[in-house]
Amino acid sequence: MNPLFNFDTMPTRPVVQGPLTGSDVLSVSQFDRDKIEYIFARTREMREMVEQAGTFDLLGDKVAACIFYEPSTRTSSSFISAMQRLGGTVIPITSGVSFSSVSKGETLGDTMRVLEQYADVIILRHPQVGSAKEAAHAASVPILNAGDGPGEHPTQALLDLFTIRDELGQIDGLKIAMVGDLRFGRTVHSLTKLLLQYDVSLRFVSPEILRLPLNLMNSVIDAGVDVRETHSVDDVIKNADVLYVTRVQKERFTDLDQYEEVKNYYKITAETMEMAKEKMVVMHPLPRVGEIPDAVDSDPRAAYFRQAKNGMFVRMALLAAVLGRA
Amino acid sequence: MNPLFNFDTMPTRPVVQGPLTGSDVLSVSQFDRDKIEYIFARTREMREMVEQAGTFDLLGDKVAACIFYEPSTRTSSSFISAMQRLGGTVIPITSGVSFSSVSKGETLGDTMRVLEQYADVIILRHPQVGSAKEAAHAASVPILNAGDGPGEHPTQALLDLFTIRDELGQIDGLKIAMVGDLRFGRTVHSLTKLLLQYDVSLRFVSPEILRLPLNLMNSVIDAGVDVRETHSVDDVIKNADVLYVTRVQKERFTDLDQYEEVKNYYKITAETMEMAKEKMVVMHPLPRVGEIPDAVDSDPRAAYFRQAKNGMFVRMALLAAVLGRA
Amino acid sequence: MNPLFNFDTMPTRPVVQGPLTGSDVLSVSQFDRDKIEYIFARTREMREMVEQAGTFDLLGDKVAACIFYEPSTRTSSSFISAMQRLGGTVIPITSGVSFSSVSKGETLGDTMRVLEQYADVIILRHPQVGSAKEAAHAASVPILNAGDGPGEHPTQALLDLFTIRDELGQIDGLKIAMVGDLRFGRTVHSLTKLLLQYDVSLRFVSPEILRLPLNLMNSVIDAGVDVRETHSVDDVIKNADVLYVTRVQKERFTDLDQYEEVKNYYKITAETMEMAKEKMVVMHPLPRVGEIPDAVDSDPRAAYFRQAKNGMFVRMALLAAVLGRA
Repeated sequence: MNPLFNFDTMPTRPVVQGPLTGSDVLSVSQFDRDKIEYIFARTREMREMVEQAGTFDLLGDKVAACIFYEPSTRTSSSFISAMQRLGGTVIPITSGVSFSSVSKGETLGDTMRVLEQYADVIILRHPQVGSAKEAAHAASVPILNAGDGPGEHPTQALLDLFTIRDELGQIDGLKIAMVGDLRFGRTVHSLTKLLLQYDVSLRFVSPEILRLPLNLMNSVIDAGVDVRETHSVDDVIKNADVLYVTRVQKERFTDLDQYEEVKNYYKITAETMEMAKEKMVVMHPLPRVGEIPDAVDSDPRAAYFRQAKNGMFVRMALLAAVLGRA
Repeated sequence: MNPLFNFDTMPTRPVVQGPLTGSDVLSVSQFDRDKIEYIFARTREMREMVEQAGTFDLLGDKVAACIFYEPSTRTSSSFISAMQRLGGTVIPITSGVSFSSVSKGETLGDTMRVLEQYADVIILRHPQVGSAKEAAHAASVPILNAGDGPGEHPTQALLDLFTIRDELGQIDGLKIAMVGDLRFGRTVHSLTKLLLQYDVSLRFVSPEILRLPLNLMNSVIDAGVDVRETHSVDDVIKNADVLYVTRVQKERFTDLDQYEEVKNYYKITAETMEMAKEKMVVMHPLPRVGEIPDAVDSDPRAAYFRQAKNGMFVRMALLAAVLGRA
Repeated sequence: MNPLFNFDTMPTRPVVQGPLTGSDVLSVSQFDRDKIEYIFARTREMREMVEQAGTFDLLGDKVAACIFYEPSTRTSSSFISAMQRLGGTVIPITSGVSFSSVSKGETLGDTMRVLEQYADVIILRHPQVGSAKEAAHAASVPILNAGDGPGEHPTQALLDLFTIRDELGQIDGLKIAMVGDLRFGRTVHSLTKLLLQYDVSLRFVSPEILRLPLNLMNSVIDAGVDVRETHSVDDVIKNADVLYVTRVQKERFTDLDQYEEVKNYYKITAETMEMAKEKMVVMHPLPRVGEIPDAVDSDPRAAYFRQAKNGMFVRMALLAAVLGRA
């Protein structure tokens, strides 16, 4: 027996049986209002902890694998920081994936079955719809979906919703306008689905070719939500409590002329902000490429960097929750 | 003097003078039965520790550099997790290597001489035979060879052997069949060399063009081992205690027609398993690309994912051992 | 409230108001002799700590983002090890950057504004001159410039100066010869600027086309330093206390014929060393590509690997200093 290795002093840390213990986080459809409230309460605790102490040893016995089949500096960085601020460690697999196991022909399921031998939780970003579900089917450790192509990006939707709630104190009763690329904008779709559980008014502002997909629009209508579509920010800016602005994603276009035509269609300038309510928030999932000029950043209603920070807190809450520590 | 920096409370941790303290791990030829037993005993402790506590601060004062000149998600992930579960940290250099120091014309020796300034141990994967030895010649900190091209991959061979021992309780007396690409399969070569120290029977099952290399076959014969070569799994399946299956590695072929011809030659299906002993283990170094269908995974004799997990425990044992903590 | 989450036992760690607390490290021009002495005193403490204990929990509450827009294994590895040896953690963004946020059109400023939500300090390497300053303008957390193209590389200059001081006990009074590519050699430029604060003699040895840039040469002359330019190492080797040798950087040349012509112009061999003083140091920022053969490594005057190690200690000192822990 290794004399440096004393099993008597090796603690088994307690597991809390919370509502997400051992669960995957694959889709916003998993989150009802109770679960959302639960995660948001944990998120606020995480924020308080980081502000007070920076890091805390809640997950010091845990290792996360963070595997990104497509790069996303923002999302991977916030997950990595989230895990590390809770005392856990990360296996970063954020590049080269396509040249390694994948090029050798391994299935996603097998990659998950191997990674779960090394890690207690797997954070997965993958370009294909349904990949997170497929991964969760294969793995017995929790899978956190960090975006599966045009499919789901539940942690982004939760951080968006948390930001609305945190900035305005409530969700029910709000008038929320989504602006920009509503057709391909995954974050818009996921957030919209979450919002259908609340008593909100929705305004969808986009160029014709980037309107909300039919089936999602029908879900909104079926939910009995007060909803309108429009082409102009001017139609919504006066009454909106939340302006959720998105980038027109160049990489989703096959016709670049069409992209050039619409990309600057919906710019939120200081002048736009003058028309808005005094207590209103401008959000953006970032990166932005001109939709909101830097000059707007100093406006107290510009919440997009606070929103990014909330992403770290929400992911801390989710990591703690699925690992049985919240 | 920095008031936060108290040298009196700064512990120098003890060093254990074990059989591998300060050593490199370059080749299976370094490991006799005593050293193997020693590492396997440490490996079992590591497993018990992880199951009980997840992580343990045995290497909290150590930093490992993990430098992979060719990607290998599996091997790098298990080394990274191994180091982190022992409380150590990792400098991950798992991509971009070819575009940095290397493209500037630096020798491998110099890269090692620099990395050892920052790290207490270097984990090296390199496409060229002999590179690990070259690295060890240059560096004074321990080098762990994580695969040097068609050369050695000693940690894989150790985890394979550990799995056999762990699944079946012994190694002597076993009938072990190697199946698939025996010509280019580095893991087959390394495991075979280790097995020559034990009293085993060996069966090599491959297509004609992928037979075991001449010199290795001669070593097996010289060792006086009971050995046979065959083309068919059917010839060995009834008596085998271990079926070690390998992927036909596409990247080793220059003629793709030849690859297509042999790639599915040796498939282990549920029907194959029916012919096998009740107490038998199917192993695979992974990734698999069709040699073993997912349907076999639920068979208790399918040991390949446990084998992958053992890789982490063996690497924990080796890290602790070379760093003087086991 | 999470029962595992006790805010009463969550310490807010003290902040030391040192001369660099909260500062960016962008340029050598920030460092006067007092600040240099301060950092060097901290650097020696860091070395003593690493030698005694390996790691120390000084920055256990901190997370660093290490973002490299161009790869540099050496610099990123030493920063990562520096942070980890102080108990801090690192978000490694050392590859794939160009394919992620950047390809989506995000500005450097926005990338910094997002990263500072997750990290307490940002270590930045970027190919464009002025990028570190631009980043510091955007971010409120400290930015450590790890090289901005042909611009500044202040941590390299500090480690170079520390090495001279550490090897020879002083800086004033020394005869320092810079050899090789003095035109594009960023490390030569930064170190020269730092040395202008000391009473040194400078000798610049280069082929005609790689002479020190005009404006820097003028600064040296204006500072009243004893200075000469020459084409031959022979002219300086007998009297030099420091021989600072640099690689002719292939990637800076557009005409490869010109590169071939000059690349081996200034080789420091064992024979060269015989002409040098007994107490003299050969330095090199590395990587080397033939300027100094391996045979010279065993000469006690060959300081380049100690110099590399000093890089880690200097970066530890800087990280602690800007984060208010030194």
